Amino acid sequence: MHTLHVELGERSYPIYIGRDLLRDPRLIASHIPGSQVVLVSNDTVAPLYLDRLREAVGERRLLTEVILPDGERYKSLQQLEYIFDRILADRHSRSTTLVALGGGVIGDITGFAAACYQRGVEFLQVPTTLLAQVDSSVGGKTAVNHTLGKNMIGAFHQPRAVFIDINTLHSLPAREFAAGLAEVVKYGLICDAPFYQWLQDNMARLLAREEAALAEAVERSCANKARVVADDEREAGMRAILNLGHTFGHAIETAQGYGEWLHGEAIAAGMVLALQLSAQRGWIAGEEVAALEELLSGMGLPVAPPEGMHADQFIDLMSRDKKVLDGRLRLVLLQEIGQACIVDDAGEDELRALLERV
Amino acid sequence: MHTLHVELGERSYPIYIGRDLLRDPRLIASHIPGSQVVLVSNDTVAPLYLDRLREAVGERRLLTEVILPDGERYKSLQQLEYIFDRILADRHSRSTTLVALGGGVIGDITGFAAACYQRGVEFLQVPTTLLAQVDSSVGGKTAVNHTLGKNMIGAFHQPRAVFIDINTLHSLPAREFAAGLAEVVKYGLICDAPFYQWLQDNMARLLAREEAALAEAVERSCANKARVVADDEREAGMRAILNLGHTFGHAIETAQGYGEWLHGEAIAAGMVLALQLSAQRGWIAGEEVAALEELLSGMGLPVAPPEGMHADQFIDLMSRDKKVLDGRLRLVLLQEIGQACIVDDAGEDELRALLERV
Repeated sequence: MHTLHVELGERSYPIYIGRDLLRDPRLIASHIPGSQVVLVSNDTVAPLYLDRLREAVGERRLLTEVILPDGERYKSLQQLEYIFDRILADRHSRSTTLVALGGGVIGDITGFAAACYQRGVEFLQVPTTLLAQVDSSVGGKTAVNHTLGKNMIGAFHQPRAVFIDINTLHSLPAREFAAGLAEVVKYGLICDAPFYQWLQDNMARLLAREEAALAEAVERSCANKARVVADDEREAGMRAILNLGHTFGHAIETAQGYGEWLHGEAIAAGMVLALQLSAQRGWIAGEEVAALEELLSGMGLPVAPPEGMHADQFIDLMSRDKKVLDGRLRLVLLQEIGQACIVDDAGEDELRALLERV
Repeated sequence: MHTLHVELGERSYPIYIGRDLLRDPRLIASHIPGSQVVLVSNDTVAPLYLDRLREAVGERRLLTEVILPDGERYKSLQQLEYIFDRILADRHSRSTTLVALGGGVIGDITGFAAACYQRGVEFLQVPTTLLAQVDSSVGGKTAVNHTLGKNMIGAFHQPRAVFIDINTLHSLPAREFAAGLAEVVKYGLICDAPFYQWLQDNMARLLAREEAALAEAVERSCANKARVVADDEREAGMRAILNLGHTFGHAIETAQGYGEWLHGEAIAAGMVLALQLSAQRGWIAGEEVAALEELLSGMGLPVAPPEGMHADQFIDLMSRDKKVLDGRLRLVLLQEIGQACIVDDAGEDELRALLERV
């Protein structure tokens, strides 16, 4: 087991990465301060791992299990209210701990429930998808979606600890595994060129889910994320580089009403657009865009927006993005592979030139 | 105009108290950092003051007005979602500012919307009821209610500034004015015996709504609240003394489904119960309880729970209170007039003895 730390002063916390953490009889239990626990999962993950998690949290005076339907469309205010209904019906107090077992949807909605329940209670992340392990479980961003925009309602609320059990990746469907790899590739592109090279060299091992390769990819991803988050917890500045491809990707997800493409798939297509725009500005070479497309295609990820999504729709949806500041769209581009930057000078003409070409 | 400060490091903010602040052409406008503003009010207050507020915020690139129905029952997740619907439809960005114009309900729900919208935007409080001016607009507690408990879903989110226009109190119905006085009396009881004496001496002037007396009562209340909040922003300890009477009061409100009694009325009856319990423990004299009952009765406030509410119902509802920590009910009692303390050793027998007597 390896341990990383997210350094955030009094909100610092450990990330444990290893095999069979869910079978450790003490690790998770030792991070639950009180006698009350709420386990939140979905109907896909719960049948696989909820028994193990229940054992891992140990005997508690009050234990409530909340199982949501699986899917991005359930990351909603309605499901959030259902969590509150259940916790309040069982009378959990301010000293309870919420534990998220599942992917990004479960982590985000559980974290937001923890941020708001009685104005804030503790929570733990037990991510079981690659996407959640390398991205959404670390950094304290929590949210639910609104029909007019993704992650529009949320809070910054750091977990008390993150437990990444590599073994859970073996049960992940291939499509979701690939979607997680999109975020792994992102770290290479934005801030870690050697890691990007490593990914190109080790893609076969990763796709075969060799445990050593998985552990390496997860650990280097989390280390990059932890460093970026520690420098800028509330995204006042450079944390935004973690959104490479996300402004385009969120537009794709919103256009489809969530759930058609997976988040990682939309991000893959969005990253290609961001690199194409970077190349259009002459910052990176066209061959570098082609190399990314080859890497993502090799993982089974899309490298272009869905059929039928046009420039007008992109521009309309992107103007609602959270990263719009006083009317100026902020985008993450690459100055070179391994070095992202944030721009707010992308005009509609420039975007239209890009989007009408794809 | 007088200015108080809530000292919270980088989250510090001013409270402006005076006559006709809403007619000042610069004061409020100068505290809005961006070009986007959302004014939130209710259908009772908006017809009286929204025009003035619109002038006070000045010209903005984007201005949205959200008018909710008046009443505690609308401090709900459903109305919160309606606020998000409206802000998102008008495409407010992360740099928008929400302005709450109204009583405690509007301040609490608007503050919570500001805490969650895109994970946190700025907000201003323009409280127009006595209760909001002396209590809920200061201190950063925001929330909505759940059918199983009051203020169960919320966040700590400090306003950027609070603007208390004393003149708005002239339009306040007598019953609401009296409800606000309950919270004013609270400050005297918990931490300011000289102020409690001043209130007893100046009750006639207050009930006549003499402006000098109102300004004095509001300012001393806010100064007490600001001091308590500055010492303990997130209620890890002594901030809880601000909840004198609230555990009993919330039980009354929940039992009635909100809106039957006003919050301040429930708190008045709850404070009497808290003082009776303090007297039952021998900490204060029976005459001091009687003096409080006389003061509150003189203001037209209830001094006992509603007819038909019995000990069992109180004990059931109080056990769901946010102030329950691992099964122990925490109550605010008085060691003497002007000195509150927090106890967690009140057993069911002791409570039953109290509640079966009233």
